[in-house]
Amino acid sequence: MKEVMAFIRVNKINPTKKALAESGFPAFTCRSVLGRGKKRIDPELLSLVIESGELPMSSKGEHLTESFRWIPKRLITLIVEDQQVQEVVDILIKTNQTGNPGDGKIFVLPINEAYTVRSGEHTIDAY
Amino acid sequence: MKEVMAFIRVNKINPTKKALAESGFPAFTCRSVLGRGKKRIDPELLSLVIESGELPMSSKGEHLTESFRWIPKRLITLIVEDQQVQEVVDILIKTNQTGNPGDGKIFVLPINEAYTVRSGEHTIDAY
Amino acid sequence: MKEVMAFIRVNKINPTKKALAESGFPAFTCRSVLGRGKKRIDPELLSLVIESGELPMSSKGEHLTESFRWIPKRLITLIVEDQQVQEVVDILIKTNQTGNPGDGKIFVLPINEAYTVRSGEHTIDAY
Repeated sequence: MKEVMAFIRVNKINPTKKALAESGFPAFTCRSVLGRGKKRIDPELLSLVIESGELPMSSKGEHLTESFRWIPKRLITLIVEDQQVQEVVDILIKTNQTGNPGDGKIFVLPINEAYTVRSGEHTIDAY
Repeated sequence: MKEVMAFIRVNKINPTKKALAESGFPAFTCRSVLGRGKKRIDPELLSLVIESGELPMSSKGEHLTESFRWIPKRLITLIVEDQQVQEVVDILIKTNQTGNPGDGKIFVLPINEAYTVRSGEHTIDAY
Repeated sequence: MKEVMAFIRVNKINPTKKALAESGFPAFTCRSVLGRGKKRIDPELLSLVIESGELPMSSKGEHLTESFRWIPKRLITLIVEDQQVQEVVDILIKTNQTGNPGDGKIFVLPINEAYTVRSGEHTIDAY
């Protein structure tokens, strides 16, 4: 069992939910987060982001120098079987890949155990 | 050391916090999330959810066909010792089990290390 | 690869982001959470917290007996290489340590795999 965490663009959340659900993987949770990548944001790239409507124009234009400014992102979490990880990752990449910086990141974390509250059903993962 | 993540109903958050705290396990964090289970939502079940007040009636009734509609949930996270996991899970199930779909899910994740910022105290988990 | 989760005081978020970014570790995400530690909140400590402005004075003073009251916290998440964990933890402790209860907690979780959506680049962690 694995937790798949995908940090994606705000405007990709609906296509992503749709693509996952149609393949039998409804996303488990969705949260709004602030995020940024590893590098300082290049003012030129930032302009592109603003032009794309992903980030609102600040009233004083100071964003152009805000190299550490954070960008609203969506964090989708799914819990899937080990053998389903690759399919889920493929769907996430296919749906979110634009080729531009900021497309997002996907992380896979181990889950040791799962319980269904309704039935008490318990799954332990070999570890 | 383990992270216990419990996705539960919104209206179960207070009884759950109380039950955990009274057993010496104050929940570490609580977040609002949107979630759903593995299956399409049956319109009949959705009606039950709406009747229960868990989901507001939409103005146009279109929720009846929104089989992928997400439902607000609460996500409680606790960090506990390995030997405490079972007790915490038992409390969570006892407090949240209604027998109806949507009771929630509990996941147990490994934690490698913990630090207390105030004292710098460091715990490493055999792994 | 590891996920470093730090639960810190609300008023420490900006110094922490700055200290991390200046050392080459921009925080990946930041979320608002409600949290509390392992012990009942001592009314005297709670008064200190309220005096510090971290928690608003309740209109009826009932917080003085609310020993299980939760406090708004910030949760910072970073994904870093194994050999960077210690440096990140040191920065987090240095920036957030006041010596008072409520300084926060840091947890280190394993990450199995990471993907960069833009390029499809894939990293697998020996486990």
